Amino acid sequence: MVSVHLENGQVGLTDAPVPPRPPGVALIRLLAGGICNTDIELRRGYYGFCGCPGHEFVGEVVEADNPALIGKRVVGEINLACGTCKWCQRGLGRHCPARTVLGIVRHSGAFAEFLTLPEVNLHVLPDAVSTEAGVFVEPLAAACEILDQVQIPTGSAVALLGDGKLGLLVAQVLQASGLQVHQFGRHPDKLSIAARRGVTTEIARESMPEAEYEWVVDASGSASGLQTAVRMTQPRGTVILKSTVHGTVPVDTAPIIVDEITLVGSRCGRFEPALALLAAGKIDVASMIAGSYPLTRAVEAFEHAERKGTLKILLTAD
Amino acid sequence: MVSVHLENGQVGLTDAPVPPRPPGVALIRLLAGGICNTDIELRRGYYGFCGCPGHEFVGEVVEADNPALIGKRVVGEINLACGTCKWCQRGLGRHCPARTVLGIVRHSGAFAEFLTLPEVNLHVLPDAVSTEAGVFVEPLAAACEILDQVQIPTGSAVALLGDGKLGLLVAQVLQASGLQVHQFGRHPDKLSIAARRGVTTEIARESMPEAEYEWVVDASGSASGLQTAVRMTQPRGTVILKSTVHGTVPVDTAPIIVDEITLVGSRCGRFEPALALLAAGKIDVASMIAGSYPLTRAVEAFEHAERKGTLKILLTAD
Repeated sequence: MVSVHLENGQVGLTDAPVPPRPPGVALIRLLAGGICNTDIELRRGYYGFCGCPGHEFVGEVVEADNPALIGKRVVGEINLACGTCKWCQRGLGRHCPARTVLGIVRHSGAFAEFLTLPEVNLHVLPDAVSTEAGVFVEPLAAACEILDQVQIPTGSAVALLGDGKLGLLVAQVLQASGLQVHQFGRHPDKLSIAARRGVTTEIARESMPEAEYEWVVDASGSASGLQTAVRMTQPRGTVILKSTVHGTVPVDTAPIIVDEITLVGSRCGRFEPALALLAAGKIDVASMIAGSYPLTRAVEAFEHAERKGTLKILLTAD
Repeated sequence: MVSVHLENGQVGLTDAPVPPRPPGVALIRLLAGGICNTDIELRRGYYGFCGCPGHEFVGEVVEADNPALIGKRVVGEINLACGTCKWCQRGLGRHCPARTVLGIVRHSGAFAEFLTLPEVNLHVLPDAVSTEAGVFVEPLAAACEILDQVQIPTGSAVALLGDGKLGLLVAQVLQASGLQVHQFGRHPDKLSIAARRGVTTEIARESMPEAEYEWVVDASGSASGLQTAVRMTQPRGTVILKSTVHGTVPVDTAPIIVDEITLVGSRCGRFEPALALLAAGKIDVASMIAGSYPLTRAVEAFEHAERKGTLKILLTAD
């Protein structure tokens, strides 16, 4: 079967065997996958990754213990947890210390004709959600995670830094949940996607508002994003860190302490709220698709995805 | 009157006039003051400070509009707030953007024979609290602030980095409030002060426990403290930042995001809980006094306070 292979910073195609299916694990045929910034970081060698990448996908279940799954379109939670530790028992398998992660940590990814995932990780995609939109469930769940971590009163103003893929999802999720999002970005065309959903958008300036917001989300993906976010935050306010930057960033801790600001790191989320939002048509993901390539043209797809300012690139089975 | 004067990194004495007393403001005669790390930073010129420093004190009210205050021993909240803004109305004058701060920001400090503070800032020192112990009310309130900011379930294990003045107060406050404090420091003699109050103490090692604590307080005053604290914290855990370091510190944000760690900056606190703890004899501050000098020997007192590893140095009126 055709599989994307990533090694030493090179993306290529390989002919891999169909993966074995242990008990409780489903064999899934890929319908569509999405290239995420994390995949691009993997290609740059940041995590010493070698193998098949891909963690955003919609597939069709080919084989499974649970007959109700067979033939269904599914999306899958990417953390493969032990199921028994204290984290798993709290429903936080995403933090299981023994976890592997689809296409990221010691589990072959979704950019292949066939992939495997435990059946407990799978969610059947509602008919109302297209396959292309379903590819966004995983990053959308990461955007929804913010609302699982902090209680933001309805109607609150929230500043958001960044208009990349994650920024646009965060903007739409928070706006759809009854918050007043004020998004700062650098690309009018991208900001317009959020603006059509009611988000107030603005081109980021040299001098940003100071100490103005009780809630600030940094999805800028920039080394200076954290410092900017802290400066924009009121005393006793909260900054949610939604994007990583490779390596260390310089942080002046004095304003964090003097103004008693809270910083909250935020990563993956539950799939349920993301599926509900997509099924209800509350999130425009179609406008975020910048291109679609068959798996056999994955090298070209990665090149496109890595071009500065590119939104979502899909990989499809055909 | 004798007053300490700090300018261009030099501590000296000056003969200043007794400060005027506007309506609502008390004239206070100094009984004892305490030299804080912030005072030492002011001397190093970090904040361009020029004038009389000092914000930890016990004094006797000489003149005031409220006759009940006259002759009383008092301590005073150090933030002079406007009283009308939204922060002041929420009882958070400590974050009033128009505030001045005793001996730190545009308000002459306590290291003088006489000082002034608004009467609303004053708290009468209970008879059960000695003047020397009363000097610790302000930093003790800063330690208590942690419990106003985060809800730590009774009996929880809390790791604490640092055994300096603030670290020892934080250790005792958290232990006295029913938490199991595990304090890491570098000085057996200092750690023994906390250990006598039931704190588990340990000499900080090259390799500290990883991902072990749900709650970690950094009072290390070290540039590496934040990184160490993050490494010691469990996924979804909380790091409380209690000590500033001048300038920027390098922070790897990846583990904060991957493990969804919360960081909480923490500064000044309300005086009430600190007064109650001291009145109840719950905090050993006497063991933290490393020396006492009359105001006229302030230069010597600062030299002593700046010696590495020195705990609290007092300045007294006589």
